[in-house]
Amino acid sequence: MPKYSIGADFGTLSCRALLVDVQTGKEIATASDNYKHAVIDETMVYSGRKLPPDFALQHPMDYLESLEISIKKVLEISKVDPDDIIGLGIDFTACTVLPVYKNGAPLCFDENFKENPHAYVKLWKHHAAQKYATRINETAEKRGEVWLKRYGGKISSEWLFAKVLQILEEAPEVYGEADYFIEAADWVIWRLTGVQTRNSCTAGYKAMWNKQEGYPSKEFFKALNPKFENVVEDKLNCPISSLGTKAGELTEAVAKCLGLKKGIAVAVANVDAHVTVPAVGITQEGDMLAIMGTSTCHMLLGKKDMIVPGMCGVVEDGILPGFFGYEGGQSCVGDHFAWFVENFAGGNFKDIIEKASQLKPGESGLIALDWWNGNRSVLVDIDLTGLFIGMTLLTKPEEMFRALVEATAYGTRMIIETFRENNIDVKRFFAAGGIAEKDPFTMQIYADVINMPIKIAGSAQAPALGSAIFGAVAAGKERGGYDTIDEASKVMSSLSDKVYTPNPENVKIYDKLYAEYKILHDYFGKGGNDVMKRLKEIKANV
Amino acid sequence: MPKYSIGADFGTLSCRALLVDVQTGKEIATASDNYKHAVIDETMVYSGRKLPPDFALQHPMDYLESLEISIKKVLEISKVDPDDIIGLGIDFTACTVLPVYKNGAPLCFDENFKENPHAYVKLWKHHAAQKYATRINETAEKRGEVWLKRYGGKISSEWLFAKVLQILEEAPEVYGEADYFIEAADWVIWRLTGVQTRNSCTAGYKAMWNKQEGYPSKEFFKALNPKFENVVEDKLNCPISSLGTKAGELTEAVAKCLGLKKGIAVAVANVDAHVTVPAVGITQEGDMLAIMGTSTCHMLLGKKDMIVPGMCGVVEDGILPGFFGYEGGQSCVGDHFAWFVENFAGGNFKDIIEKASQLKPGESGLIALDWWNGNRSVLVDIDLTGLFIGMTLLTKPEEMFRALVEATAYGTRMIIETFRENNIDVKRFFAAGGIAEKDPFTMQIYADVINMPIKIAGSAQAPALGSAIFGAVAAGKERGGYDTIDEASKVMSSLSDKVYTPNPENVKIYDKLYAEYKILHDYFGKGGNDVMKRLKEIKANV
Repeated sequence: MPKYSIGADFGTLSCRALLVDVQTGKEIATASDNYKHAVIDETMVYSGRKLPPDFALQHPMDYLESLEISIKKVLEISKVDPDDIIGLGIDFTACTVLPVYKNGAPLCFDENFKENPHAYVKLWKHHAAQKYATRINETAEKRGEVWLKRYGGKISSEWLFAKVLQILEEAPEVYGEADYFIEAADWVIWRLTGVQTRNSCTAGYKAMWNKQEGYPSKEFFKALNPKFENVVEDKLNCPISSLGTKAGELTEAVAKCLGLKKGIAVAVANVDAHVTVPAVGITQEGDMLAIMGTSTCHMLLGKKDMIVPGMCGVVEDGILPGFFGYEGGQSCVGDHFAWFVENFAGGNFKDIIEKASQLKPGESGLIALDWWNGNRSVLVDIDLTGLFIGMTLLTKPEEMFRALVEATAYGTRMIIETFRENNIDVKRFFAAGGIAEKDPFTMQIYADVINMPIKIAGSAQAPALGSAIFGAVAAGKERGGYDTIDEASKVMSSLSDKVYTPNPENVKIYDKLYAEYKILHDYFGKGGNDVMKRLKEIKANV
Repeated sequence: MPKYSIGADFGTLSCRALLVDVQTGKEIATASDNYKHAVIDETMVYSGRKLPPDFALQHPMDYLESLEISIKKVLEISKVDPDDIIGLGIDFTACTVLPVYKNGAPLCFDENFKENPHAYVKLWKHHAAQKYATRINETAEKRGEVWLKRYGGKISSEWLFAKVLQILEEAPEVYGEADYFIEAADWVIWRLTGVQTRNSCTAGYKAMWNKQEGYPSKEFFKALNPKFENVVEDKLNCPISSLGTKAGELTEAVAKCLGLKKGIAVAVANVDAHVTVPAVGITQEGDMLAIMGTSTCHMLLGKKDMIVPGMCGVVEDGILPGFFGYEGGQSCVGDHFAWFVENFAGGNFKDIIEKASQLKPGESGLIALDWWNGNRSVLVDIDLTGLFIGMTLLTKPEEMFRALVEATAYGTRMIIETFRENNIDVKRFFAAGGIAEKDPFTMQIYADVINMPIKIAGSAQAPALGSAIFGAVAAGKERGGYDTIDEASKVMSSLSDKVYTPNPENVKIYDKLYAEYKILHDYFGKGGNDVMKRLKEIKANV
């Protein structure tokens, strides 16, 4: 009898469910549902009150509703017998965090709090906590906190403690009332199983938790704000579970609601980028996976616990058990291309790619710095901005577009080279996400710039496939699944036949262009000329 | 009885005649005619043979035909009695030079030479002589030629000796056969009066001639090429006349042809930019006039003979008698705006100016370097290219457009400040040309950036008006004209009522932005990072 696992991928705007045959890895059916309130970033849901700048919230009810709808659709399409579904795994955007009561009920469901923005989910791209992140970084640096180095010397405003500190100071009533601040990923697992547990991936990458050392010390939190001293024991007090383990089993009530059977194994939650790694079958030291979309996330498996400057984090078992998981990132990739095409090419992506693909490397005489949305790795600086250099009166839009694509490839090469310079080898390169799947023009440039073959994910729903793999592992061999991620990934993962192979002629030219990129990168990014920041300051004071 | 003078302005594509009342300065009539062959830069006129890259030629017959047509039109429109027309002045693009026989007949009229590109007029923007200019500069520097400093340390490929050296080496048969190489301006005067004379303005600014020292030495020319040793005595042997003097009188044959009276005073020829100075009434030390169009030319009157690095030249009596005339320039101004609008704004100038004018200084967070066509002053480097810095995902096309306009204003400020740093004061600022006349958005930015009021030329045909002034001076008081340029300019010059006054708030912000421009200007322009040149090299080798 075939057995099935369901993976559910909670993105920024929708939840997608994927039903997979556990013995073959075949994708049987998929369906998705958009969140009713999408991203709440302009006005409050009920009163329509205007939100402060850079707020990005979500409504937690949307997750449950979209999960229900998409799973039911998948069952309907596939006509699979629910008895044969043995596991469920989920992945989520992160750090996406909300305040809840002891029983797991979100504060925002409460009449008293429904008009308080801080009672809602703070989505990963809520950027209004920058000043708290800055304080965390300055305080950690002053105190010589060793954990800071694991995050490349800087934590992001997107992460948990920046967001929670914002709540403490801007909405002390929410902070006081909340029993827990929890990742939405872990909250959904709690709703499904009745078990509260936190996944080691978000704890490690987004909440400065470490397998050996735990969270930062009380003294550190006290130095941020005396009322923050006990944040860990008061607000995060919950066991942390390793990836690849079972969080619990589906409760009867939820099972009924979803149309599934009670008692199905539910995996510990995961992060969308990280869960994609086993979905493409990556299992070796030195394998790097880039999830390429509006931004890019780089996952790299290592065997050593090394400090690599400018990386988003290194977490033991943070991607796969038995490896140190390194994460790097580019905060703006596809967003660059969309910016250009919308503003300067009448929205016509196809035409400009067609023209740009006829150009040779170096032919335009242009270089760009890919910092339209700051730089995540390796400079970790949101205040950097974009640059184009080399225009003449004959420069054409498609040349500037291509320069932007190339700039993002140089950005990826910078990350690879930084790992290598720090003795973490990058031996194989894999790509997933919308760009990897749909944009051969960009992928060939990447292969030529990094001078490595690029293998492409086989599934168009790679994160959901990864979650289904974790679901099968949570079920275990006895119930028809697998006992290890490795075993499951060998069978269920999927790689495309398409490999982008570097063109040696192009590689030579891109080596020269990258050398120029590096000079500009270091000059504008490492204090040679802080003009980008000064221009932002002037702008802020206009 | 009213008396009239005619000014004829020979531009790149047409000749424009203007009839002016000498006693009031009133413009009575104007007409223009396009050159039949326009710019010959792709194929030869008769055979259709392809021209080498960067060639830009003209057909000298076009000048005479268009002059005739436009003067006849002016007479027809104005119905003025030719007896009352006392003088004629002309101005021309420069250096625009051609080979002629002893009798003044151009070599290209000759059956033997009509298929030889080097027998035609080399227009100012003929850029195929760069390697000869480079040799001239390197040789002059090696030999420590003092005249080199008068031209900011570098002469341009557009100038006379670069073009003539190209002919010597690439078409020795043309060089051998030519009795003279002459500016088209002086050639037209020769045709009108039968008198060969060279104007001190082009001789000084374009042929390295100096009132005290004459041309460079034989030894210098010999060092360039032994066959070039006697170029001055063999090919340029002709008196040089000061601006504001009479070249001669209209011959009977020409007068008949033009519909004018024989014996009318004809002024020594002038350069289009330079002749505009008296047309706006500039007569004081420290007055600067910017002629703003596709490129910008800056004319400044000084009383001292100073060396100013990076300027196009300083010539005694080169603009007005009694002054040292300084010339600076920006090789790309309106051309930047056209590039942007054509490539990125669907050709709609009006819309983008409307949007850009609603922005405040500094609001975009952008800065550009105005080097899309290299930099004339003060870096004198055609291999520099453009730069945009500061883009984010919210950057709009109108912000980038405005940044380009601002960049050209910073370029003008750089020229003004360089003069000041070298003890040549700039006290008043005047503007003429298409941008000054038609683009208040750009002009206000210039006033705010340079922090000086800007007065605008009153005539839409300022160069032709200037030429008419010189025509009236050539006629002299006795014949109803004037004895000095100063007297003529007081009456006949014309300034618009419109003055652009700096806005103190904007000035403050532009001071900060200019400081950033200067850092980038020096870094990319003075050897801090020669990336622009290396990108051009990579491009050339693709």
